[in-house]
Amino acid sequence: MNGLDATGIAEAVGSGAITPALVAEHFLGRIGVDEPDIQAFASFDAEVVRNQARGLCAGLLAGVPVGVKDIFDTADHPTEFYSPIYQGNRPSRDAHVVTLLRQAGAIIMGKTHTTEFAYMHTGPTRNPLDLARTPGSSSAGSAAGMAAGFFPLALGTQTAGSLLKPAAYCGLFAFKPSFGLVSLEGVKPLAPSFDTVGWYGRSVRDLERVAQVLIPGFPAVEVGCRPLRLGFCRTSRWSDVQPLVAQAIEQTVAKLGPLVSEVVLPEAFDGVFDDHQLINDCEGARSLAKEFQSYPELLSDSMLAMIERAKATSWEQESAAKARLAQLAPQLAQICQPFDAMLSVSCGMLAPVGLETTGPSDFIKFWGAFGLPQVNVPVPRGEGELPVGLQVIGAFRGDAPLLGTAQVIVDALA
Amino acid sequence: MNGLDATGIAEAVGSGAITPALVAEHFLGRIGVDEPDIQAFASFDAEVVRNQARGLCAGLLAGVPVGVKDIFDTADHPTEFYSPIYQGNRPSRDAHVVTLLRQAGAIIMGKTHTTEFAYMHTGPTRNPLDLARTPGSSSAGSAAGMAAGFFPLALGTQTAGSLLKPAAYCGLFAFKPSFGLVSLEGVKPLAPSFDTVGWYGRSVRDLERVAQVLIPGFPAVEVGCRPLRLGFCRTSRWSDVQPLVAQAIEQTVAKLGPLVSEVVLPEAFDGVFDDHQLINDCEGARSLAKEFQSYPELLSDSMLAMIERAKATSWEQESAAKARLAQLAPQLAQICQPFDAMLSVSCGMLAPVGLETTGPSDFIKFWGAFGLPQVNVPVPRGEGELPVGLQVIGAFRGDAPLLGTAQVIVDALA
Repeated sequence: MNGLDATGIAEAVGSGAITPALVAEHFLGRIGVDEPDIQAFASFDAEVVRNQARGLCAGLLAGVPVGVKDIFDTADHPTEFYSPIYQGNRPSRDAHVVTLLRQAGAIIMGKTHTTEFAYMHTGPTRNPLDLARTPGSSSAGSAAGMAAGFFPLALGTQTAGSLLKPAAYCGLFAFKPSFGLVSLEGVKPLAPSFDTVGWYGRSVRDLERVAQVLIPGFPAVEVGCRPLRLGFCRTSRWSDVQPLVAQAIEQTVAKLGPLVSEVVLPEAFDGVFDDHQLINDCEGARSLAKEFQSYPELLSDSMLAMIERAKATSWEQESAAKARLAQLAPQLAQICQPFDAMLSVSCGMLAPVGLETTGPSDFIKFWGAFGLPQVNVPVPRGEGELPVGLQVIGAFRGDAPLLGTAQVIVDALA
Repeated sequence: MNGLDATGIAEAVGSGAITPALVAEHFLGRIGVDEPDIQAFASFDAEVVRNQARGLCAGLLAGVPVGVKDIFDTADHPTEFYSPIYQGNRPSRDAHVVTLLRQAGAIIMGKTHTTEFAYMHTGPTRNPLDLARTPGSSSAGSAAGMAAGFFPLALGTQTAGSLLKPAAYCGLFAFKPSFGLVSLEGVKPLAPSFDTVGWYGRSVRDLERVAQVLIPGFPAVEVGCRPLRLGFCRTSRWSDVQPLVAQAIEQTVAKLGPLVSEVVLPEAFDGVFDDHQLINDCEGARSLAKEFQSYPELLSDSMLAMIERAKATSWEQESAAKARLAQLAPQLAQICQPFDAMLSVSCGMLAPVGLETTGPSDFIKFWGAFGLPQVNVPVPRGEGELPVGLQVIGAFRGDAPLLGTAQVIVDALA
């Protein structure tokens, strides 16, 4: 089972070669061994897993175990958003995407640790590649569980860097679709202008398969044979990238050779990072208004700081930030138009030591600010060295071509 | 209590002049008399109302009864979306805005009838102004309950015309804020590009007061004394307007006299109506995918027709429709920029006879397609005649100025 991706497992289950129960037991075994070290799960119950694995054998994800970030409502597990305010919270029904996963035959393995309300305050999860390091945030448990082999698929969300950062730190394939394609019903909002459901898989085809399930009508991914045209875009914050990360990404880009042109963005884009944060602050404060009014003492310092920043931001400042992004979006689309995809780094650093902070999300939120689809392609380094993440960015709603391009890149780098 | 708006009630309760219990009993009395005819409520329990009315006396909405459309999750009432699929569905927690209302001291009077999933299939609610007619949809019960005097405030939602259409048909003040300002946590999604929480009140100041509660940081509304500049925009569908509705609106606009300039939009805007519907279809089909997969036989014909239209629409067609709206948005902003607000009609017809269909939403969804804030100002006609709705539209995130402008218009028309 270790060698199989989710697609391989679903095919094996669909053909009758293995049973969902056998699949479940394999992954339960991995969890039994390593979960005490990793702490990927906010809620886990082996019997709930086994019950689901009885008799499931149809669907695109037949018998495939999936980890679900504890920011999605689930009826058979508490949903606590890593906040004491919601201790023991039991939704009466599943989030939309959890239902779609179940309808496709998937086995929900449990709820994985998130930061508090998918913002900054971190939980106990460790990076399986180095237990002294963070797996990144906020989809920490989903990413760590993937890297630990607890499940071959996992759901996360991304507002700033919450999906791709853990993917970069843990060496995973990740896909954040274009803004607005995946239902957020039953997902706790943070900043609705950016909040997007995404997922981890063991391969690009896994990422596509989940898209077929969660985005009804998703176009078939075609892996073309004509040469790709790729843009490599460092953005204005490249000097923040650790030298060994920059080197690894530049070597990777160099391997793709003459397909790649360097793209330098106009200075007007330098403000995108700050505009994203300002909007995130203001929308986050509105999204958490009810919790702040009733239980301010149960919010973390980082959450309270966000709300304070929002209070210090005027309505006009937020409007102006939103207007700037709206104005830049068509310019960026035009700059990217000649390319099949843009390349960048997912994170400017390797997974930091310690569990309390997880590093900036600048290179991810830059593209997310415009709702563009994003893929993390893991780039292994030397034996025993931590991976880096190559970010591949598509055009708005060009999700299927982006996955095709990502597959070509993976093949070219292999 | 009949003469008081929500603001007046909250002030009277806040000053101790009346008790919340007394307020509740007044409205319970109205409900007891007229609900059998009107059928505004999907779920109602007088004891739940009385329990809330004990001891509430602080907050911007202290002691103010509010009707809540049955598309918002509530912990103390079933939440059924007017769908047999969700019969008896009991959410474990309130929607975000319901919690904010409670924190502000409001009394939730019950759940009001919606169409199926806030789309087209209508419920049993009748228009209090003429029981043979529809109150409009989809926020039918909230609007009818307002017109019947069951509560002085009510929550609705709008994707195409769901808030302003019932306001026009029932003669109510209504406010749909700019897209993205109000949390949709715990609200069943239909078309996420357009879905917006809005509300009914008895006055413009009521609309503002609710905005202060549901949109933390909402700017104070200033009613200026300089002359307004208003644009009157018929759009390309004006020929669909019933002559007596057109006459009433044109007379109303004429009363505002030299403040108003007629605005004719370029032909490029003629496609907005169809693009809105196409996007609504495609997003609606994605939002209802889990229900369609499990219970197609429990969906209405109009819902199934929507899903069929979505299946017949290509990914590229949907992308193109979204791209056209994105391209037109800055053009529309520029056209509207010289004006404090735009004027139009809310609905091209009076409330139709019968309960099964509620008429088109074209004049509402045209502006909603761009996320603009919208107000319905009720325009009374002759004694015993049904009202029409004057639509007042603001700039994106110009919600507070729009309410100020609406107040000036109301004063000028008085």
